[in-house]
Amino acid sequence: MHVHTAALPVRTRGKGTYEITSQVEAIIRESGVRAGQVTVFIQHTSASLIIYENADRSARVDLESYFDRLVPEDADYFVHTAEGPDDMPSHIRMVLTRSSETIPIDGGRMQLGTWQGIFVFEHRHAPHSRSLAVTVIGEG
Amino acid sequence: MHVHTAALPVRTRGKGTYEITSQVEAIIRESGVRAGQVTVFIQHTSASLIIYENADRSARVDLESYFDRLVPEDADYFVHTAEGPDDMPSHIRMVLTRSSETIPIDGGRMQLGTWQGIFVFEHRHAPHSRSLAVTVIGEG
Amino acid sequence: MHVHTAALPVRTRGKGTYEITSQVEAIIRESGVRAGQVTVFIQHTSASLIIYENADRSARVDLESYFDRLVPEDADYFVHTAEGPDDMPSHIRMVLTRSSETIPIDGGRMQLGTWQGIFVFEHRHAPHSRSLAVTVIGEG
Repeated sequence: MHVHTAALPVRTRGKGTYEITSQVEAIIRESGVRAGQVTVFIQHTSASLIIYENADRSARVDLESYFDRLVPEDADYFVHTAEGPDDMPSHIRMVLTRSSETIPIDGGRMQLGTWQGIFVFEHRHAPHSRSLAVTVIGEG
Repeated sequence: MHVHTAALPVRTRGKGTYEITSQVEAIIRESGVRAGQVTVFIQHTSASLIIYENADRSARVDLESYFDRLVPEDADYFVHTAEGPDDMPSHIRMVLTRSSETIPIDGGRMQLGTWQGIFVFEHRHAPHSRSLAVTVIGEG
Repeated sequence: MHVHTAALPVRTRGKGTYEITSQVEAIIRESGVRAGQVTVFIQHTSASLIIYENADRSARVDLESYFDRLVPEDADYFVHTAEGPDDMPSHIRMVLTRSSETIPIDGGRMQLGTWQGIFVFEHRHAPHSRSLAVTVIGEG
């Protein structure tokens, strides 16, 4: 049994979803772990993680439209507005999705389903440099 | 320390919640792990996992009614509609719940609370065969 | 590699968010784990966990206001009402947030971002004694 830790930087171009599956796969290969699990963690409160369908771009468009409606920017009861109208909705969208994703590893490969990918969900309008921490635990 | 991996197939009868607590407990017994954690992961993007109250069926009825309202099937802005009206809402309901659940193990038992169970939340109308991957990590 | 398990009791004063970051840090120090991960799990279905911005209290006020609106107490279609009007919304708010949080550990420290804290999100009006289970796994 051993542990492998890695930092995974991700640049976003503003609001939207960014697939990071292949970067996580590369970290698992480096780790040498054949059976165990990987945890991907995002070190921010205005961007989050999702596991999502990675075949058809239109499913991501609809997800982003839905979240724009579910957590609107112009809620008149928000008091935390000093950092701009997209800041408070970003925090809520992060809470409604995930800060970490944990995925089993078997035979040296993440046990993702056929249509699953790991995505950073950027909630701010401006491009950002996002920091992720990855831990792989298991047997070589 | 060791790792135990298992596949857990779950058949659903269409939309609704399906408890899998006892199946996960059986995998933990097989693993021999006494202290550690179990991760349950669902390999799909139109079904998800929740930990939920398992005593009173009415709490599940209300949860399902709520999600039907929160993510309606007939949103006029959806463009990802080729796979039917229940497909895009399924993806969103999955994102709003969870792809994985991680539960501590102590004394050989999952540390679930008195009223907690692990459930597959099926979001499609039709029955489906769902594949879950389970990893148990810990000391025997 | 080793595993450290601990119980973490948290008293709430009713609805709201309660930071537990320093208590989790103390458990990691006790564990002696330098590289690995910690899983925090809440053993209840009417309180949940979030990782959230811990610098500005107003961001928590807005989050709580948002959830009051997203899952109202007076939904006329709820049938699970025997335990009071705040019970069923509590279960749904728990599902929309998290039962567990998993955070990487490196150099003996949780890899939280600058503005991230771990919080119990109490959804019931009355004060409660909440039980959390914590597992630390990794190398010393």
